[in-house]
This record gives sequence, C-alpha cells and structure tokens, in this order.
Amino acid sequence: MLIVQKYGGTSVGSLERIRAVAERVAETVRAGNRVAVVVSAMSGETDRLIGLASQLGKSPDEREMDLLLSSGERVSAALTAIAVQDLGIRSMSFTGRQSGIITDTAHTRAKIEKITGERIRKALESGAVAVIAGFQGVTEGTGDVTTLGRGGSDLTAVALASALKADLCEIYTDVEGVYTADPNIVPEARKMEKVSYDEMLELASLGAKVLQTRSVEFAKKYNVPLVVKSSFNNAAGTFIVQEDEEMEKVLVSGVTYDKNQSRLTILGVPDKPGIAGKLFTQIAGAGLVVDMIVQNISPDGKAADISFTIPRTDSRKGLEITRKVAGELGAKNVDLKEDISKVSVVGVGMRTHSGVASRMFDTLARHGINIMMISTSEIKVSCVIEAKYTELAVRALHEEFNLEKAA
Amino acid sequence: MLIVQKYGGTSVGSLERIRAVAERVAETVRAGNRVAVVVSAMSGETDRLIGLASQLGKSPDEREMDLLLSSGERVSAALTAIAVQDLGIRSMSFTGRQSGIITDTAHTRAKIEKITGERIRKALESGAVAVIAGFQGVTEGTGDVTTLGRGGSDLTAVALASALKADLCEIYTDVEGVYTADPNIVPEARKMEKVSYDEMLELASLGAKVLQTRSVEFAKKYNVPLVVKSSFNNAAGTFIVQEDEEMEKVLVSGVTYDKNQSRLTILGVPDKPGIAGKLFTQIAGAGLVVDMIVQNISPDGKAADISFTIPRTDSRKGLEITRKVAGELGAKNVDLKEDISKVSVVGVGMRTHSGVASRMFDTLARHGINIMMISTSEIKVSCVIEAKYTELAVRALHEEFNLEKAA
Repeated sequence: MLIVQKYGGTSVGSLERIRAVAERVAETVRAGNRVAVVVSAMSGETDRLIGLASQLGKSPDEREMDLLLSSGERVSAALTAIAVQDLGIRSMSFTGRQSGIITDTAHTRAKIEKITGERIRKALESGAVAVIAGFQGVTEGTGDVTTLGRGGSDLTAVALASALKADLCEIYTDVEGVYTADPNIVPEARKMEKVSYDEMLELASLGAKVLQTRSVEFAKKYNVPLVVKSSFNNAAGTFIVQEDEEMEKVLVSGVTYDKNQSRLTILGVPDKPGIAGKLFTQIAGAGLVVDMIVQNISPDGKAADISFTIPRTDSRKGLEITRKVAGELGAKNVDLKEDISKVSVVGVGMRTHSGVASRMFDTLARHGINIMMISTSEIKVSCVIEAKYTELAVRALHEEFNLEKAA
Repeated sequence: MLIVQKYGGTSVGSLERIRAVAERVAETVRAGNRVAVVVSAMSGETDRLIGLASQLGKSPDEREMDLLLSSGERVSAALTAIAVQDLGIRSMSFTGRQSGIITDTAHTRAKIEKITGERIRKALESGAVAVIAGFQGVTEGTGDVTTLGRGGSDLTAVALASALKADLCEIYTDVEGVYTADPNIVPEARKMEKVSYDEMLELASLGAKVLQTRSVEFAKKYNVPLVVKSSFNNAAGTFIVQEDEEMEKVLVSGVTYDKNQSRLTILGVPDKPGIAGKLFTQIAGAGLVVDMIVQNISPDGKAADISFTIPRTDSRKGLEITRKVAGELGAKNVDLKEDISKVSVVGVGMRTHSGVASRMFDTLARHGINIMMISTSEIKVSCVIEAKYTELAVRALHEEFNLEKAA
C-alpha cells in the first residue's frame, strides 16, 4: 500500500516524540508499504514565531509572516527524516516547493491549486520515505512561500494523498479518533469506528477539533480514505469514508458543542424589505463570519428582532459594526450576549428519519434548558443555549440517542 | 550608494537587537542609499538545531542538515523585514533561492557558483529594502537547499555585493573592527582604520574571528570594498580594501595568535626520499588539515624528525594515523604536544622591508620564550611557542612594533 501519514504538532513536539514517529514510520515500511510523511511544526513553535513577529510589527506583512511560519515545518521535516534514517531506512525531506505544492497568492490562508509531487513520487519509487513539510506551498509566478492557514498540514496530507493516489491517508494526533461526544464531558462517549465525510464536516465545523474542515472537504471531493488515530498508542482510530447503508441506519452519530460564539441581537428593526440584506452585507464586508441567523417578527408586525452569531473573538468588532448599521436602519437597540453555547446533534441517518429535532428540543426542555436559537441542516440540528448548560445538554443528548452503545 | 549590510547572529540575537538593526537600516535608507541586508540566524539558533539533529541521528544526512539549518536565517530575514516595515519603510525578505544564490552540491559547505539576484535587484530598484537570508543557497539541478558552512553569511553578503555591483559591503558584528591585537590581551591594541585584503586573510586564518576567510578571498578576487563595524554603536569600523602605498610604509599591522592547534612529531624517521610525501598523503587522506611542517635532519644524517601542526580537535585522530604511518615507515616514536600556541605578526610592509622575522625572534628570546616551529609567508611570520607564553608574546610583539601608535 501507498500510505500518507500526517503527524501533528504534539506528535512531533519533542525529540522523544519524533523518535516515536520514526519508529512508527519504520514499522509501516517494514510491513511492506511505501510511506510519505507530512509533519507539522513542533507544538508551540508556530505560536512562538507569531509572538516574535507581533512584537516587531503592529501588522506584519503576510508575505513575510509566511516565510517566517513555514520554517517550523521545515525543521520538523528535516529532523523527522534524520530520525528515520537513524533506524536504517532511507529517507529524504521535502519542502512545500520541492513537493510541487502550488498555491494561489493569498498569503497566510493560501489555497492549493495543484500538487505535482514529482520528487515525492521518485523518492517513494526508489524505496525511500519522503518526509514533507506541511502547511506550506509556493506561488506559481514568483515562487513566494505561502502557508495554508491553521491546520493546514492536514490539508497538505489529504491533497498529497489525492495527488499520489494513496491507498490511505492516516492523520496522527493526540486523541484516538472521533468520539460520539467530548470524553471530558461525557465519560461514556464512544470512539466511532467510522464516520461519513459529511458527518465529519459537521463535526469539524461545530467544534470537534480533530480535523481541519478544509481537509475533510478536500477528502470528500476527491474520495480520499482518511483515518484519524493517536500517535501515542496503537488504538484503531476512526475511519472517515463515503457514506454507506449501515451508517444511514444510525439516527445520530455524535453530539458536539461550540463555546466560541457570541450572539448579537438588533431589537426593533423596522420591518421593511431589504433590511436584513443591508445588515449582513456590511457585516460580511467587515470580514465577520456569521454562523446562525434568526429573525422574529414582533406581535404587531411592524418591527422585527434579528439575532445572529459570530466568533467570540470578533465580539467587539461585531458590536461596533452592528451598532452603526442599527442606527442607519432606525432600529431600537443592539444586544451582545457572550455566554452562549451551541449544542448540536449530527448524523446522516437524519436524511431518512424524522423526529430528531423534536427529540432534541424535548430533551433540553426536560432538563430545564431554554433554547435561544435553532438551526438545522440535512444531517444536523443545532441549538444555542446558555453556556452554563453546555455540559448538561451534551450529556443528556448523548444519553437520549443511546450513543454509548455501538450501532 | 548601493550598500549591502550584513548582520551577524549577536546583531539579530533578540527582538531589541533586531529593532536596532531596523533603525540602522532605516537611517541608511533615509540618508539616500539603497540597502540590501543579509542576516545570520539569531545567535544560538544554529547550535540549537545542530543539537536537536545530533540527538536524533548519529551521522545525520548532510542534505537534511542543510534544510534544517537554513531555517534559522529565514526566520531572521522575515523578522528583520517586518521590523523595517514597522518603521514605515517598504521591505521584502528573500531566501537563498529567491535571491538566486546557486551553489554546488557540497551540502553543509557548498560553494557559491553564481548569484542571479534578479528579485533583489527589482526590489531595490522599486525602492524597497531587500532582506536576504544568509548562509544558504540552492543547487541548480534539483533545487535542494545548501548551506555555505560556518560564517557563510559573510560570504553571502560579499558575493551579493559583488553581484549587485554594490558601492560598499558593511559587515556588522559585535566588535568595532579589526584590532592590532586581541584587546583582551593587549589593552593598548588599536583599531585599524584600514587593512589590506591580504593582511585580513592572514589575520582571519590566524585566528582573528572577525571575518570568514572565504569571504575575504572573495572580496579580494572581485575587489569588493568591505568595512567591519559594530552593530552596537556608531564607531567608524575598519575598512578592508586593496593594498595602497601608505599601507606598505607600515612594517607590521597586527599581532595575532591561535591556541587551537596541536603539534605532532615523528622521531627518528629513516632519511629516505618520499617519506614525507607518504606521511602527508595519509594525513590528508584522513581529512586532517596540516598547517605548519618542520623537518630536521639528525646530526648523523641518517634519520629525521618531522613536526607538524593540526587543529586541536583532531589531536586524537591525528595521533592514531601518525602512529600507524610511523610504524610503516620504521620511525622510532610519535610525540603529541597540545599545549602550544601560534603567534604571528602580519603586515604588507614585509614585502618591501626585511628584518621583521629577526626582530620577532629577538623579542621572544629577550622574554625567555622558546620557539618550537617557524613558518613565514610574504606578509607574515608565525612562531609556535608554549601556550602559557601566548599573552606575554603578543604583548611583547605589540610593543616591539609600536602598534599602539597609529601609522
């Protein structure tokens, strides 16, 4: 088999961890596989470099930031190759450029445009282990170094697996896989054996930090078989694959939560057409990412309240812009609520079964938890509640949908 | 003027130091100059990376070492560019590759083959400050990253100055220039206003650590005007330029010493032709660099004693090889002496004046210092003495040749 293995920051976070990675790579090679390894920067390194830059410049140029940040993964790649060599296995390290990872010019959040992978392919064919610096690429024209944004090494691994037509892409991290809920909150949470790309996408975007959303989207689009597992032991991990019939039998596969959102409400907006459009055009123009939106019409039908959620880190900026727009619209008041939480249930089974939403609302009500906002998609239901009820809600929903039991 | 400024590891060793570098660059720009800046890794970083690698592999692959080590200069370059930008001056960082620094494939000690410098030239023409990661280049064929060996950033700066036809190459370091002797030993030592390339070459190779020898050779070959100065203050520094008439009037320009050598002696070598050739072929074959060689014929003319010096770090290896060869040659014995020191006087004036050597020998004799070996070149005389006399010898020679007084 041709396997792409990706090791995150904690998995290469010390010399001991790098040696453990080398051992695992060696085992995989000895089992008869060809292996390409993608590594992140040693844990803490990227933040250290960002810290240095932010002390030197108020708004450091993104091109320079990319040159700076890409160095962490280069160091990891060289060290990992050296550790693999020390086990008597031929190994070569490759930068994003040497791997032929071509991106657009959007520094610090570049998109991969293509991967030639010529040298990786040659190294693998010659029997060597290729170790690739994750998170980075180069622009086609000037050959400037770009980075792919937080979690970008996942994307490097998935995109490379696709380019190399790998049989499997293994994402090694510090957890054993994808769980039915956060095990820190729900001790009965069960590691899923497999989960569909769509479910993983909802789980990833809802706050389960195992995999970067873009890499799951990429894997889905190009049908790259993924497995998430721990680099600290030999547990089986969770496969992320195309939806199958068996999955559809399961109503809900996981419960997740996100405490990093804030709610903004504009009260008493005159109920005229085009108001919402005006508001959200300005919000988007300021670079704020809106997640949920709810609009209520007042009893007299003359004014509306509009609530929406944005990332907690953008609270102040959001409040400022919303106040400005509210004034222009002739609205009464703006309210910011930060101590909220979004709790969601996810499962491809919802496509063919109904009643999940009402069971969720009932369960929350039974525990005295008020629902502030609701949003649904084909395979998920999300409720915004007061933050203090988060753990209670997750546990109650986990129990209600019997997630502690394997399907 | 077009000026290339090179800042060493201590000059970019902290955020405060990088800010100071940015200030100096900004001043130079505001004075109407175009500036290309070459930076080393932050002090200690290269050693830290070597330490990591050596803990992971007994003999790390040199190709991987180069990828690893080159990251330190990239970080410095990005941070320096950010600091310059923060002062309101446009600046861009460039890697060895982006600077078009093409080297041979001798990893960890590559030689620069050519510098295209296209992007640097464009950046400078557009009015931006170009910040270049020193110490590194890429191979022409595979585009692998190479490094130029210790002190390689000096070479980057000099070679770049030559390629850009710069008016001046400024080497910023933690000393104020080149001194007539080590100021730690001779308080009266005087900073030289200027020194010739040839003198600097002898001084550099004799242990004055201000400038890497290869970069001085390069500067001499391509006639690049150099100045060595401190990044910690605004003192004038020492110019390193082509020899002129004024310099020739000065008999001796500096006294230097090297405590990092050992002496090996083979006693009672049968006096037959080809013996020395055999010995030094094997020594060189083992990668040992021999500095001085002295051969004495014994009074009866039948046997000879051969002494030579090698770097102290190679003492054990040298002793082993020499013992083996001595056995093969039928020599009597091998003697290793480590507590030696080489003291030298340097000056282009020696080309046209005689008597320097005898004055040196007399001075040492007058202070009761025995001379163990002697070697001379056109512009220097070196004596190997017991290490404990080093400071005394340097002070005595500094006084004898009146170096405390400006010429």
